[in-house]
Amino acid sequence: MNALSKQVRIVEVGARDGLQNEPGEVPTAVKLGLIERLADAGLRHIEATAFVSPKWVPQMADQDAVMRGVPRRAGLRYSALTPNLKGFQAALAAGADEVAVFGAASEAFTQKNINCSIAESLTRFEDVVAAAKMHGIPVRCYISCALGCPYQGEVSPQAVAEVAAAVYQMGCHEIALSDTIGVGTPEKTKRMIEAVLKVVPVEKLAAHYHDTYAQALANVYASLQMGISTFDASVAGLGGCPYAAGAAGNVASEDLIYLLHGLGIETGVDLDALVHAGDYICSTIGRPTRSRVAQALSKKRSKA
Amino acid sequence: MNALSKQVRIVEVGARDGLQNEPGEVPTAVKLGLIERLADAGLRHIEATAFVSPKWVPQMADQDAVMRGVPRRAGLRYSALTPNLKGFQAALAAGADEVAVFGAASEAFTQKNINCSIAESLTRFEDVVAAAKMHGIPVRCYISCALGCPYQGEVSPQAVAEVAAAVYQMGCHEIALSDTIGVGTPEKTKRMIEAVLKVVPVEKLAAHYHDTYAQALANVYASLQMGISTFDASVAGLGGCPYAAGAAGNVASEDLIYLLHGLGIETGVDLDALVHAGDYICSTIGRPTRSRVAQALSKKRSKA
Repeated sequence: MNALSKQVRIVEVGARDGLQNEPGEVPTAVKLGLIERLADAGLRHIEATAFVSPKWVPQMADQDAVMRGVPRRAGLRYSALTPNLKGFQAALAAGADEVAVFGAASEAFTQKNINCSIAESLTRFEDVVAAAKMHGIPVRCYISCALGCPYQGEVSPQAVAEVAAAVYQMGCHEIALSDTIGVGTPEKTKRMIEAVLKVVPVEKLAAHYHDTYAQALANVYASLQMGISTFDASVAGLGGCPYAAGAAGNVASEDLIYLLHGLGIETGVDLDALVHAGDYICSTIGRPTRSRVAQALSKKRSKA
Repeated sequence: MNALSKQVRIVEVGARDGLQNEPGEVPTAVKLGLIERLADAGLRHIEATAFVSPKWVPQMADQDAVMRGVPRRAGLRYSALTPNLKGFQAALAAGADEVAVFGAASEAFTQKNINCSIAESLTRFEDVVAAAKMHGIPVRCYISCALGCPYQGEVSPQAVAEVAAAVYQMGCHEIALSDTIGVGTPEKTKRMIEAVLKVVPVEKLAAHYHDTYAQALANVYASLQMGISTFDASVAGLGGCPYAAGAAGNVASEDLIYLLHGLGIETGVDLDALVHAGDYICSTIGRPTRSRVAQALSKKRSKA
């Protein structure tokens, strides 16, 4: 058992993974307003948008305007999801500091989503990774279904490790182990990470957990015990679960920060400013926050 | 670090700690309907009501009818909160198998709530504990504010340990370490338990966590790592936080059971039946569930 890391890096995915899964169109100015507030809160790694076809993901149709409009500050990096070379080139032209590709550890999920095997899906990243390398742009790879799949159910730690090894060898600089449907629990999480650690160094790993079954923070704590020190989160828990509409999705950044600060871990994030960013987007798009921390702090504030 | 316990005992507090903190009057028949469904779900320790003055806690005014009306089954035990001898005698007459007293590890909280010091407050339990001993009735003691106080803020592990030692020596058979305002995080939780374990054996301890800041399950996992094997929870997260109205309170039993079963720990509880009990009380009193597991399962069901 490792001592917990003293510092954790947060990858804020609310503007992409979050808003991509919210119903309704969010104006570009509101997205930029959110991103500015996230930057004000001290977040230094923000996934801003996705360079995907507006036919498939209409919520991200303004990807170019978003990536060109983000506030530029020292130390602040923006990434974008780029599933193919066309997306990568557009992201690069718009100024993305980093890009991300999206894989899965489940055969059933891969077949259902992109109609090919996991092995075939990995070859589709190769040109993005090669082009990115040429331009000095780091590539993150999400491995979805790392703790369970909406179609096949169980996903073995070994299956996750195999995909992780492949994309690491391909040259991805960070691998986000993603519990896409939020079904994982802490010991299972540890077994999965343990398998991955045999093939990828810990500093190359990030954990991306969903709170669908309320397990995200317990899984984060378990992951910290395994040495993980990069975590994804979505302000206000934006996004929900694409496989159970109305249920919780991405772990709320506020709840994650509360945990980490309570553990004495530095994040560089100001919790009050982060709650403010969450208030902004929730009041603008007219939905309640899914962050329990934001709920409790705002109730306390309104009482005071 | 201990291996996690293979079995965990759940103390279901929804009918008492939960409903006591819900606005509005819940008819006795509905409380009994809830308790019957909780028993059907396999819960074997149910805190049914509180023998307190209806002047202070009108929600519990039907304590006598509730305790006399609960379904009696083999292995099923009912407890009641009894802050004084009068309450204890009424609980005994109504058939309580067990009683509970309510202490705190915070001087400020104790002064504010019962206008005396912690030391003085403990002497008030003595007659309840003595009378219970005479009748062979076990007494549980809640130690509230074990991880923080709404008035004084920080509460030291040592302060919790001192109260725990006193009530253990007095003869309490179980001590419920209670994060009344849900502010605790896992390492702080471990330090608190570590201090208490120096003066009370682990099998005498229970953990009672609130999810106000989304930390409850991470704290449960940390407590399991410390050897704790009795946990309190409230179906549907009934209750909310008395110090931040509208915020989350008791950890939802469904979320706790999902965690424990995911860890391979036996509880004897059927999760589907428990969700059904939560649906019953939420639809009857007209409020949404606070259990993320119940939300996700019901969304999945309505989609299927």
